[in-house]
Amino acid sequence: MSPTRKSFGSDNHAGAHPAVLRALSQANAGDAVAYGDDPLSQRVAARIASLLGAAGGVHFVFNGTAANVLGLSLMLRPHQAVVCPDGAHINVDECGAAERVLGSKLLPVVTANGKLTPELIAPRLDDRGDSHRAQPRVVAISQVTEFGTCYTLAELAALREFCDANDLLLFIDGARLANAAAALDCELAALAATADVLTFGGTKNGAVGAEAVAVMRPGLSADLPYLRKQQMQLASKMRYLAAQFGALLDGGLWLSNARHANQMARRLADGVTGAPGLGLYQPVESNAVFAVLPPDLITALQRDWTFQKWPAGRNVVRWMTAFDTTAGQVDEFAASVRERAGAMAG
Amino acid sequence: MSPTRKSFGSDNHAGAHPAVLRALSQANAGDAVAYGDDPLSQRVAARIASLLGAAGGVHFVFNGTAANVLGLSLMLRPHQAVVCPDGAHINVDECGAAERVLGSKLLPVVTANGKLTPELIAPRLDDRGDSHRAQPRVVAISQVTEFGTCYTLAELAALREFCDANDLLLFIDGARLANAAAALDCELAALAATADVLTFGGTKNGAVGAEAVAVMRPGLSADLPYLRKQQMQLASKMRYLAAQFGALLDGGLWLSNARHANQMARRLADGVTGAPGLGLYQPVESNAVFAVLPPDLITALQRDWTFQKWPAGRNVVRWMTAFDTTAGQVDEFAASVRERAGAMAG
Amino acid sequence: MSPTRKSFGSDNHAGAHPAVLRALSQANAGDAVAYGDDPLSQRVAARIASLLGAAGGVHFVFNGTAANVLGLSLMLRPHQAVVCPDGAHINVDECGAAERVLGSKLLPVVTANGKLTPELIAPRLDDRGDSHRAQPRVVAISQVTEFGTCYTLAELAALREFCDANDLLLFIDGARLANAAAALDCELAALAATADVLTFGGTKNGAVGAEAVAVMRPGLSADLPYLRKQQMQLASKMRYLAAQFGALLDGGLWLSNARHANQMARRLADGVTGAPGLGLYQPVESNAVFAVLPPDLITALQRDWTFQKWPAGRNVVRWMTAFDTTAGQVDEFAASVRERAGAMAG
Amino acid sequence: MSPTRKSFGSDNHAGAHPAVLRALSQANAGDAVAYGDDPLSQRVAARIASLLGAAGGVHFVFNGTAANVLGLSLMLRPHQAVVCPDGAHINVDECGAAERVLGSKLLPVVTANGKLTPELIAPRLDDRGDSHRAQPRVVAISQVTEFGTCYTLAELAALREFCDANDLLLFIDGARLANAAAALDCELAALAATADVLTFGGTKNGAVGAEAVAVMRPGLSADLPYLRKQQMQLASKMRYLAAQFGALLDGGLWLSNARHANQMARRLADGVTGAPGLGLYQPVESNAVFAVLPPDLITALQRDWTFQKWPAGRNVVRWMTAFDTTAGQVDEFAASVRERAGAMAG
Repeated sequence: MSPTRKSFGSDNHAGAHPAVLRALSQANAGDAVAYGDDPLSQRVAARIASLLGAAGGVHFVFNGTAANVLGLSLMLRPHQAVVCPDGAHINVDECGAAERVLGSKLLPVVTANGKLTPELIAPRLDDRGDSHRAQPRVVAISQVTEFGTCYTLAELAALREFCDANDLLLFIDGARLANAAAALDCELAALAATADVLTFGGTKNGAVGAEAVAVMRPGLSADLPYLRKQQMQLASKMRYLAAQFGALLDGGLWLSNARHANQMARRLADGVTGAPGLGLYQPVESNAVFAVLPPDLITALQRDWTFQKWPAGRNVVRWMTAFDTTAGQVDEFAASVRERAGAMAG
Repeated sequence: MSPTRKSFGSDNHAGAHPAVLRALSQANAGDAVAYGDDPLSQRVAARIASLLGAAGGVHFVFNGTAANVLGLSLMLRPHQAVVCPDGAHINVDECGAAERVLGSKLLPVVTANGKLTPELIAPRLDDRGDSHRAQPRVVAISQVTEFGTCYTLAELAALREFCDANDLLLFIDGARLANAAAALDCELAALAATADVLTFGGTKNGAVGAEAVAVMRPGLSADLPYLRKQQMQLASKMRYLAAQFGALLDGGLWLSNARHANQMARRLADGVTGAPGLGLYQPVESNAVFAVLPPDLITALQRDWTFQKWPAGRNVVRWMTAFDTTAGQVDEFAASVRERAGAMAG
Repeated sequence: MSPTRKSFGSDNHAGAHPAVLRALSQANAGDAVAYGDDPLSQRVAARIASLLGAAGGVHFVFNGTAANVLGLSLMLRPHQAVVCPDGAHINVDECGAAERVLGSKLLPVVTANGKLTPELIAPRLDDRGDSHRAQPRVVAISQVTEFGTCYTLAELAALREFCDANDLLLFIDGARLANAAAALDCELAALAATADVLTFGGTKNGAVGAEAVAVMRPGLSADLPYLRKQQMQLASKMRYLAAQFGALLDGGLWLSNARHANQMARRLADGVTGAPGLGLYQPVESNAVFAVLPPDLITALQRDWTFQKWPAGRNVVRWMTAFDTTAGQVDEFAASVRERAGAMAG
Repeated sequence: MSPTRKSFGSDNHAGAHPAVLRALSQANAGDAVAYGDDPLSQRVAARIASLLGAAGGVHFVFNGTAANVLGLSLMLRPHQAVVCPDGAHINVDECGAAERVLGSKLLPVVTANGKLTPELIAPRLDDRGDSHRAQPRVVAISQVTEFGTCYTLAELAALREFCDANDLLLFIDGARLANAAAALDCELAALAATADVLTFGGTKNGAVGAEAVAVMRPGLSADLPYLRKQQMQLASKMRYLAAQFGALLDGGLWLSNARHANQMARRLADGVTGAPGLGLYQPVESNAVFAVLPPDLITALQRDWTFQKWPAGRNVVRWMTAFDTTAGQVDEFAASVRERAGAMAG
């Protein structure tokens, strides 16, 4: 990674927001009961629960994979399965944690843009009642998706309606939920209300490392304390997870961070538009730009800049922006893309 | 928990050492590759590996339960079992994580002081070769033990010799390994050398929350990166776990923290010696004092002071000291114990 | 194993009752729907359900370990644990199947005679509500126990009452349930009524290999078809499991088989009473004789006869009788015991 | 199911071959050591091992799902995955047993005819070395496939070569391995030699219920006895599983049974050829006929005949023949198909 050039490789290449670090220091005064029974942890959890309308409470864990696994574990019996997009983080980026830790089968569905629809889910329900088949119980979506796209509120409502009509529960991987709320200009609660259980990511939003599992129905959270411990996600000094989220809540920092990251992706997409040989692979709806590029151009750019070629087997790159990406950094990168694309095309 | 009185309930009631928080801020400059491939993570891991002599490397995780489970997972096939004391953290304090996440059977052994011996382990080997029985493969001990006792180097050597002679691997839960090194006045490497895999705890030593898994033999760590991810313990912004350990290493802070905590436990034990009705339940060999008290005295003390009655079914209390426990706090608590014990006895 | 002398090693050393083999042949006429939807499977399952009063139905599996695991799986969430005697088959003789397949923690309790009591169970409930501890949910007993002892109906009623009062479910490993019914001279239903889920063993009673899981409450069996398939216990040609049980039900063959085996154990115990150096280790309450013998005598007898030294670490032997053990075989063995014991004592 | 008409629904709708039942009776003489240590079990296992060239031995289990799971468990570490066709029995017909019991991720690949090729597998290897991804370790194929097709020996050799070149192990689900050997007119050993571990099915070949796991390399079977027990597949009265296979081996009954079933499928396919609106969905290469039919015709035929509509979402039916399907039954069915097809077309 270039020490002088901003990484566009991931929003977790960024550090933490200074306010988050200050909050850690402020949380450091004196003793506190461990394992989340301290006042700070309870207060911050309650604030997020209120923001999301999470009647089953909000519960902190260490990272996104754990948030997904814990969230899913609240909803599944051993023979029940999870319908998800085939590119879902839980399916391709968690080293089989769902299968290993939960023992649950994932039923991946091919999608064009990372989004599930009722039409895509419906065929997976044909096997219901057949004891030879794992039984679909949860529909898992990511908002923002792994392709940087956002479900509209109408699309979410359609999924919710489909789930209700088909005795399915709806899970949202919200590692970038803040970016979705910023992109859709809606309340977090409007997104959360469509789910039974969801995660709310702090890490990519400017935290050191903190994620939350929000449970929308009280009945689903009864086992959570045990499952969190068993899944090795109960922090002893919980106050330091809570403090990070506290800083992100204060003054709506989570929203301004997300909004800024989204704007930088928009600026980047605009900045490279028209570069010879370059096209967008997905619409830019959050803090990611997925672009199609000639392979030589990808290689040339990766010499100086940090970003990933993804998904596999395609000449597609993923450029991520973060809360601390500056307009100048974006412009420098966009100029570099245009210049090299032009040189190659010439 | 009293806001004005030091907690003697747990060494994780303490906050973080100021040097740890400073290190987090220092680690916050600019971008860093995620998932541990950044220079700081690599450098600190190498420092700890050097300190322990861990040829298979040192790998960070979020908490102690995870460190234990990940460490054990390096050594077990599905039908293999772990011989451990019945009071071991992995057996009683991790909500069945070993059984759930690893699917492994624990073979608990009753001990008087939390310590295993070759004599206690040997009978568990009788079932070897019987396909009806889970096969003992790992001996898991805690150093410091859950009863605050320390294995001597001779005791460790005897266990190592027994394991070698019986095709067993040796695992050390080192959540308080620093306290053991301080108590025994030995190198960490001398403790680590007796194990195949061990953990090295940062959290109770003054970190915000950081633990390390140290692998003593290279052959055992080949799968670790995958298993850590699958076990939901791969931090994206790994530098902040590394930074905490970096601060504890600088200037031997880990050792002075542990030494101080041990001294405070010693001071507390000395301070309450002779109080009517009070006896020690275990020798004081680390930062814990286990004392036998009349039930009424326990109840009276818990009105003003924070500590646990443990183990269950006995009139025994556990008083823990931490890196930030002061002599004044100890003396105040000891005086309170003596005073009330005297009043009750009178 | 001696080709000419009856084995006293296990009731599964015996072959199958001729009526069972005849039933297999009778079941062989024409096609039948697979996986238990054939008329014979449904009819036999209904007969057993009626015999036991199993409102949640009776479901066939291949062997006893599977019956136990499937039965327990109906009652457990991932963080819940099973209180059982430390010598329980599920704890020591199933190679960790419960931990591996269910991921569940067993909480073993030391017993004198293989029997749990409310007093022995109660201390394991102290950890309820503590998220660090696996939560006791099921009490698992064996009737007949692994030590050949039988719970009386009063003892069962006391356990049932305790479970009801403490929100616990009761599971019975009934691999030798027929022997218990014969020993207590009671209906199978009287035993079954004390359980929420139990197994009913055919194999040791004269089957080729067939066990049943009986669910006493309908609400507990909703997931069973899926769990049985997932646990690899759904027979395609199910009629052949059902046929075996059908033969055992006809004319009360299960009862006469069990009664006979019990009588042979009684005859054996009587036959060796008074042999020098020999004492009973457990009361003879089923088809097992547990005796204490001088080690030299054990060695000498095992030269000619097949039986096990068990439990480990004691000079105790287990002599099992079966549905096909004859009085003559028992008398020959008892004479041999007496003769050698006398010779050694002389 | 019609009591008078042969089922074409599955080869497990058939009963057992009379020779198998006779073998059960013959095995019933006297006592036998349990759990597979009896002479008959050892002898039959050795015969099959010799037939297949299985240097790691042959081991009996109860059913096909269990054989697959046990076989795969010999080859996988927790983070390793299985590449398989998306229609593989292990992926769609075992209620998630692989995920639940093994905790392993399956990586399904879309195929046209149920067969994998090196070209289809290769892209799944792109993620090797990425700790976020489950690591492909085993390629699992079925021979005969779930679509009734057979890999040619050349296709198997190509897969074997690819696996060797890419550090992959090859597993064959041989529930219908006998049908493949009959179809290809080759030795079982020629098929087995391409695998590291395979299963050899008895049930669909005329057994009551018996499957075998064959291990081609000794190093892979060291843990098998424990894993079989833990996976609840160790039969106490093992001789009755062995006896079934013994009967199938005697006089090459397995081969004549398979050959006959294949011929009946061929006869059926020939018999319906030219029926209006009917086409073959897959080539007929074993004991299955997959045909495309108008939906009305399917409905009409299912009124009188037993067979499945499969795979889902297509107007395709699966007609299976068995060892006991007669030419007359086939001709009657074919005539019925032709007649109705003609009536509808007319």
